[in-house]
Amino acid sequence: MTDDDRRITLGHGAGGRLTLDLVQGLFAPLLANRFLEPLGDAAVCPDPNGRIALTTDSFVVQPLFFAGGDIGSLAINGTVNDLAVAGARPLYLTLGVILEEGLPLADLERVIASIADAATRAGVQVVAGDTKVVERGKGDGIFLNTAGVGVVRSGYPRTDRGPASGDAILVSGPMGDHGAVILAARHGLIPGPGLASDCAPVTSLVDALFAAGIAPLFMRDPTRGGLAGVLADLAEIPGSGVRVEEAAVPIRPAVETVCAITGVDPWHLACEGRVVAVVAAEDAERAIAAWRAIPGGEAAARIGSITAGSRGRVDAGSSGRSDAESNGRADADISGRRGAESPGRVVLVTRYGGARLLLRPSAELLPRIC
Amino acid sequence: MTDDDRRITLGHGAGGRLTLDLVQGLFAPLLANRFLEPLGDAAVCPDPNGRIALTTDSFVVQPLFFAGGDIGSLAINGTVNDLAVAGARPLYLTLGVILEEGLPLADLERVIASIADAATRAGVQVVAGDTKVVERGKGDGIFLNTAGVGVVRSGYPRTDRGPASGDAILVSGPMGDHGAVILAARHGLIPGPGLASDCAPVTSLVDALFAAGIAPLFMRDPTRGGLAGVLADLAEIPGSGVRVEEAAVPIRPAVETVCAITGVDPWHLACEGRVVAVVAAEDAERAIAAWRAIPGGEAAARIGSITAGSRGRVDAGSSGRSDAESNGRADADISGRRGAESPGRVVLVTRYGGARLLLRPSAELLPRIC
Repeated sequence: MTDDDRRITLGHGAGGRLTLDLVQGLFAPLLANRFLEPLGDAAVCPDPNGRIALTTDSFVVQPLFFAGGDIGSLAINGTVNDLAVAGARPLYLTLGVILEEGLPLADLERVIASIADAATRAGVQVVAGDTKVVERGKGDGIFLNTAGVGVVRSGYPRTDRGPASGDAILVSGPMGDHGAVILAARHGLIPGPGLASDCAPVTSLVDALFAAGIAPLFMRDPTRGGLAGVLADLAEIPGSGVRVEEAAVPIRPAVETVCAITGVDPWHLACEGRVVAVVAAEDAERAIAAWRAIPGGEAAARIGSITAGSRGRVDAGSSGRSDAESNGRADADISGRRGAESPGRVVLVTRYGGARLLLRPSAELLPRIC
Repeated sequence: MTDDDRRITLGHGAGGRLTLDLVQGLFAPLLANRFLEPLGDAAVCPDPNGRIALTTDSFVVQPLFFAGGDIGSLAINGTVNDLAVAGARPLYLTLGVILEEGLPLADLERVIASIADAATRAGVQVVAGDTKVVERGKGDGIFLNTAGVGVVRSGYPRTDRGPASGDAILVSGPMGDHGAVILAARHGLIPGPGLASDCAPVTSLVDALFAAGIAPLFMRDPTRGGLAGVLADLAEIPGSGVRVEEAAVPIRPAVETVCAITGVDPWHLACEGRVVAVVAAEDAERAIAAWRAIPGGEAAARIGSITAGSRGRVDAGSSGRSDAESNGRADADISGRRGAESPGRVVLVTRYGGARLLLRPSAELLPRIC
């Protein structure tokens, strides 16, 4: 039997000898740590000595392997990042694996090795896991679920105040890299050297802000829904609006190219290693400096501000980009409110000085991006 | 549009408006609690003030709905029970949902309502969630993942000693109910009134032991792999063997019937609301009494003992049941070791006074039972 002949069978998920072989022969050695090692029903971990943050994400990305990462590194970083932007220090992850019968064992081995590597880089431990197998045609290779536990910094989230008019909106790096990679792969575009997923832990970016004495007023990682989704959430905070400058948002030329070819707005593309933060205007420069000083933060930028209700003239005609992906709703909204005040709205000031409303993507912009 | 027309689309998983509608319109109202409510990247929960237990399970059971439960109640109880048998008080759960495009929304609503109900019964809160949608033919209706966090009782697991020769092996109730229900459904058998999944939280069963002053030497819930799997794990503890009395193991007549029809060994069938525990022989009667006094423990029984190395005469011919489901390995092992001492082995003393080795199921006994 050659390596290529080794494939996942239903028996690998049935809880018997084959499952045990998979766990003891593949998962346990690669993910080895003292909490996972007993392989009991649950891992027993030390008292975290603080409030805990909990999160979960499932991963169904296609293709499984892409420039800059794979479903394994994505699953680790996705959950680590959700904890980090909640102000928590990520500690422990759990890993649920749903395999499709017939999956080459080599693919699984590659993914688990990537998970082990990503966990080490992010400083977390996979302490519990579960494997299920579904029949051929009832799954799609590999689905992963990671849940994570972290300990929340004292004093965070801030209780003194939330984002308010005049606060600065920052991004830690270029937007849309991960989404563009997946989009290119789906369209059969061959990614050039400038195009790779930004998939990475954001823990050090978050740490850098606190180390600089800055407790952010808001932090999010712009995954599904992209920057547009995060800004829309921000604008939904009662009494606030959002105003961003198109020219200030860092976007890689390769990402712009993919977007130009496919007609997709980079503002809607997912990142997997970036932070969007709101800080007081007087902290903005120091925050940017703190980010630019560390790997992954070199292109950090201030992209806009919180407003009391954006007053920019909102002009559908000035949009430099197609709104086709928003199913026409952007145009409808804009023309209905042209020139109106827009509390609760995200106003994008274009490179040409005009303004448009930025809406969250409504539907299947790009399914299975993560 | 009638209710039947409402189906899951890829857009429900794309992170945009439709995802938000699903989260805010279905998940959040049904699962409402103060930790979930902010719907942020991660839930922030109080300091657990103790060691934490972590576990995860994915659920791919077919059919989604069965006598005595559904994939939703299974997902909650499966994870609650993994925490409980680790000696932890279950606190918080996360929920990952992978939906297949075209799933009737009514099915999802039914499952989420069941999750909410099961969580309330088990005294846990679903504090974080995630929804993904995959294309038709790339999933199978609904897959769930639950991860759980509990706080571990001080003094557990015991550090003074583990299971040793002479200790008693107890079960909290009849074996194999859940597995028999799924098995019957797969074979198109119509379950009679005596056949329903045992799907339930075991928290109160575990609590009852500690309340009686008994800290178990070993606890497990016999899910995939069934009682045979748990006993095999127990026998793998260095220096120990296991000896169980077939006649002492409670099995419902309806489960026996399903097994007789399908040729499956009830020892290999999953339970989803039972506990297997090892206690010192002198504690056995009190433990059984504690269990029998509470709902779900009425049929609790002592089924055998830990041995230093089981000395029963092992006779393949005396097995009252087919070993076909063990792929012939049981027969091979038994005939190779007939009459030998069997440390590390599980010896089953049959109703007829003979003995056979009980092996863990090796392969696809019954895929997708949970």
